Amino acid sequence: MYAARVLHGAAVEERESGEAWAELDSPLPELISTYLADCRNLVIDEIKSFVPSDSRYQSVLYDLMLDYPLREAKALRPALCIATCRALGGSLRGVLKSAATLEFYHNAFLIHDDIEDGSEKRRDRPTLHLLHGAPIALNVGDAMLALALEPMLDNTRVLGLGKSLRILQCVARMARESAEGQALELAWIRAGEFGLEERDYALMVHKKTSFYTFITPMRVGAIAANAGERELALLGRAATLLGLAFQIQDDVLNLSADEAAYGKELNGDLWEGKHTLILMHALAKCDASERARAVEILRKPRPLPRASNGLHATLFQLRAEGMLSDTAWRVLAPQLESQYSSEKSAEEVAFLSELIRRSGALEYARSAAAMRARRARRLMNGLTARSSVHLRFLQGVADFAIARDR
Amino acid sequence: MYAARVLHGAAVEERESGEAWAELDSPLPELISTYLADCRNLVIDEIKSFVPSDSRYQSVLYDLMLDYPLREAKALRPALCIATCRALGGSLRGVLKSAATLEFYHNAFLIHDDIEDGSEKRRDRPTLHLLHGAPIALNVGDAMLALALEPMLDNTRVLGLGKSLRILQCVARMARESAEGQALELAWIRAGEFGLEERDYALMVHKKTSFYTFITPMRVGAIAANAGERELALLGRAATLLGLAFQIQDDVLNLSADEAAYGKELNGDLWEGKHTLILMHALAKCDASERARAVEILRKPRPLPRASNGLHATLFQLRAEGMLSDTAWRVLAPQLESQYSSEKSAEEVAFLSELIRRSGALEYARSAAAMRARRARRLMNGLTARSSVHLRFLQGVADFAIARDR
Repeated sequence: MYAARVLHGAAVEERESGEAWAELDSPLPELISTYLADCRNLVIDEIKSFVPSDSRYQSVLYDLMLDYPLREAKALRPALCIATCRALGGSLRGVLKSAATLEFYHNAFLIHDDIEDGSEKRRDRPTLHLLHGAPIALNVGDAMLALALEPMLDNTRVLGLGKSLRILQCVARMARESAEGQALELAWIRAGEFGLEERDYALMVHKKTSFYTFITPMRVGAIAANAGERELALLGRAATLLGLAFQIQDDVLNLSADEAAYGKELNGDLWEGKHTLILMHALAKCDASERARAVEILRKPRPLPRASNGLHATLFQLRAEGMLSDTAWRVLAPQLESQYSSEKSAEEVAFLSELIRRSGALEYARSAAAMRARRARRLMNGLTARSSVHLRFLQGVADFAIARDR
Repeated sequence: MYAARVLHGAAVEERESGEAWAELDSPLPELISTYLADCRNLVIDEIKSFVPSDSRYQSVLYDLMLDYPLREAKALRPALCIATCRALGGSLRGVLKSAATLEFYHNAFLIHDDIEDGSEKRRDRPTLHLLHGAPIALNVGDAMLALALEPMLDNTRVLGLGKSLRILQCVARMARESAEGQALELAWIRAGEFGLEERDYALMVHKKTSFYTFITPMRVGAIAANAGERELALLGRAATLLGLAFQIQDDVLNLSADEAAYGKELNGDLWEGKHTLILMHALAKCDASERARAVEILRKPRPLPRASNGLHATLFQLRAEGMLSDTAWRVLAPQLESQYSSEKSAEEVAFLSELIRRSGALEYARSAAAMRARRARRLMNGLTARSSVHLRFLQGVADFAIARDR
């Protein structure tokens, strides 16, 4: 199917062997989804080519490196990287290794993020640490970060030393910015801090989402294409706005998506007590007693899986069957309950949902995302580049950021 | 004290401003410990210079990056890197950033290793994840791996593009080799595999210890000094042997060190079921029934901290006070016991110790380490370099590897 896509029209001169881009004149949603799928295929092939095969390490290392990359995903980062390079006149060959590296890095960080957040699902399947244990998952992530260096060093053969080093610097900067963003959020979680302002949220998103998903992929693509300072600056401003629009839409989807299309856990952000623009807006709008209750709930951890608590179940069962005396139960009951009352309950999460619904925070967030997307699109329209499917993807990505359903 | 060391004699021409090396004619143990301390001071200053300071991220990120590096440690890796470069005629300035990067990388991996192994102590103090939780510790490690890229990219200004890229390639290779070594061990642990041969052990040590502690630091130092192929090959062979000698001595110390000097948990390898040469030798020497019992013990996890088990303690207390009926206890007791019988006990670890003592495995391991150290020293004596404190350190490190008490 991939190979059978027909290539014709105004985009032909933009293609290189192996590319099978969408047609320039197809409707924007179709162009974007085809472009993303095309880039994903190219990048997965490239990733497979640099993940080694060695039977001694296969089952606990190299097979696991491909697990997340092969799960269904948008692959937005490499598409942005490729589109920026190609729109500005660069070659696919000059950017493909970098695009694949960014996607590989991203998947390594997802493995570590899932361990840090205790997440159970990633792209519709159990997280890597649930499947193989945290030690193996952590090591796979580390090995991916190490392995990602090699194609970037290979870049020197295609791009020369100067550009390759600039790209390495971009990636080092990205990794540092996203660790800082992660640190910011972990510090808020540790302190139970929910009295945040919008600029705190904007700073975290700038570091965790914009740098990682937009600024770096686009900047790397632009460097590979030898873009000038004007283009780099314009892309940087657009990418910052796109990151905000994209993250706010992510937060909106987490609370209001169609579950079948979404593929992640609905309301997961509330269970985890994530710091979102929506939550901040709702906390600012409600009265003091509601706010106090909401913060108390948010500070509680999400419940641990109950499977390990066979002993608790046995005790409740023995009590129900009259086999534990009132005296014994008076001692045991508070201990059994104290664990559950220290965790969030479904009723408490429903309280947070209702608070958000009443505050109009979802509508507020949707319009905040739309405003950023409009500004990003205006900036992108100012790029000096001739018409191409790549440019149309870049200019359309702002609409995609806020219109997507997953 | 550091600055007050007197510089004189044959080593003077080898010194640069800021260096305060040991005297060339001091006894070897003193020369080595002084050389290590000197390098550690230089490297810590360099590390401090590239860890940023930013109050927003200090308490959960940047302060924590310096925690492990500032704890008392040998700093063997940077000393090997500096000594190799200086012995082969390279400058301190040309190698210091790389040496500091290696030490920084090492500390990042220690943080992740401690999480993977569930270790509680590192360099006489609680591990980072015990102090701050696994999410924050994991993120600090990731941020350190990212930050370590920056001084290596800065290297281009001192060493030029070519050498800087070769050094980056060495570091990428090292990270990949050690992840493979770690994967090998994690796979054995997952499979409860204890029927290993010496060559399995040698492969794991080559990847986890030799590449990491000897091959890469020495190779990086040699590249910075512009060494030729003959020197690189000779150093590579010596480094492989040194890694084996060093690791075997590490395993010996874990079972037989003087606890006050050691600073780590004695017998920790037995509690964790680590795959050591000593254990393999003991398992090969004992009879079939002892081996079966030993493997059964080794496959059990080490006990979790008991603090979280207040409920268990309460139930034992209620039973002791006659407040739980026989009927209830018949249901509860197996559940309470099954947890403990699935973990290693102190008696079981003592059984393993005794098995090792009787088998002569410690003596076997000591002589295996000594044999590698002798061969490494002979190779090192073949280096073409004029007499210097750096060369003497390099040539003496084989004795140090097997004579140290921590």
